[in-house]
Amino acid sequence: MKNTAILLINCPDRKGIVLAIARFLYEHGANIIHSDQHRDDALGLFFLRVEWALEDFDLDELTFREQFVPVAFQFAMSWKVEYCNKTPVIAIFVSNYLHCLVDLLHRHQTGELKCEIGLITSNHQSATSLAEYYGIPFYYLPVTAEIKPEVEIEQLELLARHSVDLIVLARYMQVLSAGFVTKYPEQIINVHHSFLPAFTGAKPYHAAFARGVKLIGSTSHYVTEILDEGPIIEQDVTRISHRDQLEDLIQKGRDLERVVLSRAVRWHLDHRILCYANKTVVFD
Amino acid sequence: MKNTAILLINCPDRKGIVLAIARFLYEHGANIIHSDQHRDDALGLFFLRVEWALEDFDLDELTFREQFVPVAFQFAMSWKVEYCNKTPVIAIFVSNYLHCLVDLLHRHQTGELKCEIGLITSNHQSATSLAEYYGIPFYYLPVTAEIKPEVEIEQLELLARHSVDLIVLARYMQVLSAGFVTKYPEQIINVHHSFLPAFTGAKPYHAAFARGVKLIGSTSHYVTEILDEGPIIEQDVTRISHRDQLEDLIQKGRDLERVVLSRAVRWHLDHRILCYANKTVVFD
Amino acid sequence: MKNTAILLINCPDRKGIVLAIARFLYEHGANIIHSDQHRDDALGLFFLRVEWALEDFDLDELTFREQFVPVAFQFAMSWKVEYCNKTPVIAIFVSNYLHCLVDLLHRHQTGELKCEIGLITSNHQSATSLAEYYGIPFYYLPVTAEIKPEVEIEQLELLARHSVDLIVLARYMQVLSAGFVTKYPEQIINVHHSFLPAFTGAKPYHAAFARGVKLIGSTSHYVTEILDEGPIIEQDVTRISHRDQLEDLIQKGRDLERVVLSRAVRWHLDHRILCYANKTVVFD
Amino acid sequence: MKNTAILLINCPDRKGIVLAIARFLYEHGANIIHSDQHRDDALGLFFLRVEWALEDFDLDELTFREQFVPVAFQFAMSWKVEYCNKTPVIAIFVSNYLHCLVDLLHRHQTGELKCEIGLITSNHQSATSLAEYYGIPFYYLPVTAEIKPEVEIEQLELLARHSVDLIVLARYMQVLSAGFVTKYPEQIINVHHSFLPAFTGAKPYHAAFARGVKLIGSTSHYVTEILDEGPIIEQDVTRISHRDQLEDLIQKGRDLERVVLSRAVRWHLDHRILCYANKTVVFD
Repeated sequence: MKNTAILLINCPDRKGIVLAIARFLYEHGANIIHSDQHRDDALGLFFLRVEWALEDFDLDELTFREQFVPVAFQFAMSWKVEYCNKTPVIAIFVSNYLHCLVDLLHRHQTGELKCEIGLITSNHQSATSLAEYYGIPFYYLPVTAEIKPEVEIEQLELLARHSVDLIVLARYMQVLSAGFVTKYPEQIINVHHSFLPAFTGAKPYHAAFARGVKLIGSTSHYVTEILDEGPIIEQDVTRISHRDQLEDLIQKGRDLERVVLSRAVRWHLDHRILCYANKTVVFD
Repeated sequence: MKNTAILLINCPDRKGIVLAIARFLYEHGANIIHSDQHRDDALGLFFLRVEWALEDFDLDELTFREQFVPVAFQFAMSWKVEYCNKTPVIAIFVSNYLHCLVDLLHRHQTGELKCEIGLITSNHQSATSLAEYYGIPFYYLPVTAEIKPEVEIEQLELLARHSVDLIVLARYMQVLSAGFVTKYPEQIINVHHSFLPAFTGAKPYHAAFARGVKLIGSTSHYVTEILDEGPIIEQDVTRISHRDQLEDLIQKGRDLERVVLSRAVRWHLDHRILCYANKTVVFD
Repeated sequence: MKNTAILLINCPDRKGIVLAIARFLYEHGANIIHSDQHRDDALGLFFLRVEWALEDFDLDELTFREQFVPVAFQFAMSWKVEYCNKTPVIAIFVSNYLHCLVDLLHRHQTGELKCEIGLITSNHQSATSLAEYYGIPFYYLPVTAEIKPEVEIEQLELLARHSVDLIVLARYMQVLSAGFVTKYPEQIINVHHSFLPAFTGAKPYHAAFARGVKLIGSTSHYVTEILDEGPIIEQDVTRISHRDQLEDLIQKGRDLERVVLSRAVRWHLDHRILCYANKTVVFD
Repeated sequence: MKNTAILLINCPDRKGIVLAIARFLYEHGANIIHSDQHRDDALGLFFLRVEWALEDFDLDELTFREQFVPVAFQFAMSWKVEYCNKTPVIAIFVSNYLHCLVDLLHRHQTGELKCEIGLITSNHQSATSLAEYYGIPFYYLPVTAEIKPEVEIEQLELLARHSVDLIVLARYMQVLSAGFVTKYPEQIINVHHSFLPAFTGAKPYHAAFARGVKLIGSTSHYVTEILDEGPIIEQDVTRISHRDQLEDLIQKGRDLERVVLSRAVRWHLDHRILCYANKTVVFD
């Protein structure tokens, strides 16, 4: 685990912001490792992500949160700081398609995803043996329209019990209620198997096939109360031709889904994503 | 100019089609240069494109059209044959953005597009000097809502006078009437500056910017009576990030538009495109 | 399993080939499902892949092999026929990096790869539990320069015992001897972690990083006696920037390797690849 | 023309650099518009590009160059500052293939390239009318091995007379001498029609075709004394198949060359490129 801290900032653009932050960090002994900033010209907003080594830094997380307040106040900043000295916990929700789950589990094992996988839950039993193989608690919670409210309560209890920081919907074929979603703002990542905003809703590969597109896509995004409308984190596409039948689209799409979802999860865990205006800034 | 002929076929799939065509061509001395076929499993349809050298072939175009009738009848074929011994004529419609026009003109000059550019017409005068430089007749026809019907009559007269086979809308910012479109079925190619079906209609780059997509696209398609709904010929995308402002999308998009439109025009001129079910088969 | 047969042909181009084959197949009751052909203009060669349903076909594999001889002789064809009524067996060779293995195992499980995985062998023990989880025989055969000849004999015995049709080197970090390779011509597929012919040999990501390329690639190819020089089956690339350090290249490259290797394996199993002049024709 | 200045810095990484620069700029009234930095972990180097509005800035270019010296000295910086209040002048060298030239001229006309095209020179006469159409001085300088030294002297005189800041080799098929190259360090951009370091030297499409690659590429780079070995600025690739004959590679490659070269020129003109260790940092 890296012994660093990350500060994310979002505020109206004006002179002196960079100087104020550079001075604050320097005076407390920070050795800046990465820094990236962005300006939205149209909205006049300034965004910053800065990461520094904690080695010689003289503020712990609590003290930072106190002492940074005047700087933040002066520039009307929205901000958050993350000390990377505790491992974030993720939960994976899955249904019957397991390719994204297999992918996430292997990436986690190779160290690509810096987190603990606290639990896997599914409305099917197909992932049971995989979860067992990787030694991760698995909860089988079948869902029907009638019992969905109760299931969500169970799910929320599981998330709380495992102190989950991020929920990954790895081809989970159930729609979460607005009540559920609002409990985890910008903490639920979904993969939708189309190039959003094309082909929202169910069966996007069928719709893409019917429309005769020449590329199919996949999109990872934060989940909001409006289905398929949350801030897009990552998208990718692959070429198809008239030779590709529906099952070929589904198969080629699986490769996209895995890549697009895993990138989103990694970037989230690296605190590289900042949301505003229903969009994302993904710092490099 | 290649001295070849091309046969395009679309019929219900059954045994013996390939044999019947192979025999017909062989018996008349055809040397097959390319042949490509496709089966739509879901619809049970068979598609074929075959190109042969005319050197030793003993049927001229008229005789072919007569003698092939029994074969076509036996298999209930939709078919067309093209003898590549006359140069097709295209018309380019353009407004104020000239990048696609410049591109097509240069590709034509280098021999990439096997056609004659019969005329350029525009509702603006900005293309005048380019047309002059390349020695192509230019017609300036300003359009307003009131005079659009008359303008379309003028355009149709121009197309007839120049014996135009294909109309290329190279960022022509006017919508053609249904009456106009039906006169040139599968003979009008448009480029839409989005990854259709996302962002139909006006100002797709603005819409893409607002939605926060991570890729922008471009689509070339045949024009039908329903705007942006015709059979897609080609699509391509390019990556953008939060750093790209609206003007960056527009600039990056120009490179897509040129490539996507010119491919569609080239494939059409090579008789490689076959439409069915509002989709295209693009033979390699 | 599909009940079909596939014929692959490679011969000098001349009139009548398509007719001869179409007639032969038709007369024996074949219902052609796919057919694809290619001409190498420079070399004057003709290539064909045709797949038909065996349902009404009146020749079994042995009889086909006899009766097709005169047709093949007439046109001086190199040819092979494959009746898809037995499952091909593959062996996976792996070292310490397991991402390609994990990927192949999952694709096999989802039915994407139509084969039996007869065995996994490795010079390390890291894949033991994965092999066990998927229920595949695993052979741990450590290799040093001194004992390599004996190890290869053991490997060859294993391959024979399991009737292996295809060997997949899924990041196997040992070079196979020429003697070994010649026993499995066009039956060994390797993935090289660079865009060949750039960065042949060891440590291609290091070399790519040092050269400052803006894209990294991956290549799957048949193994021949000359290292990294066999016929290329598939390649893909991904964008990197100055921000990507060596470990980022390695991580991004893993996603390429998996995709590029699995495509090659699938196409080989589908009998879609034809080699000539140290190149491949990959029929769609 | 934007009324901004750009500072590019390259120095050993240590605490306080960002603060020192932020303070210096703030104290002189700079409104920072863009700022991007990079750390090469392996080499311990720090890179920065910062752009600010000159509106309220109280230092002119000369005074900046004096007053910044102590800051630069303190951190052992290599640095350069560019005040964007004069238009840079470029020269385009071309031979018989004009697609890159056509592309650059049109991009210049649409405002995509912020520069003056001071001159076009060629060892052929094919570009004469294009230069005339766009109103750019054209110099026809035929080259043979014997007279090459004299031609280079003429070229250098032309460059001096037109105060050229950047030389663009837009498919110029002559190798410039080391003597010539060293006069314009990091000021000559070439496009090589392969994915370097694959297929260096002459006829890369022929070599790619012979090797049977599945993707072809294009590379723009700064020219150094060693042919095809200079720092890579941009690369891109496109997919080909066995169906693509040599002429198809050449045609598809043209689209890559145009895009890859024009991006490099634009980034250079925006002072976004920083070279070190024979690589480039291209700030976003």
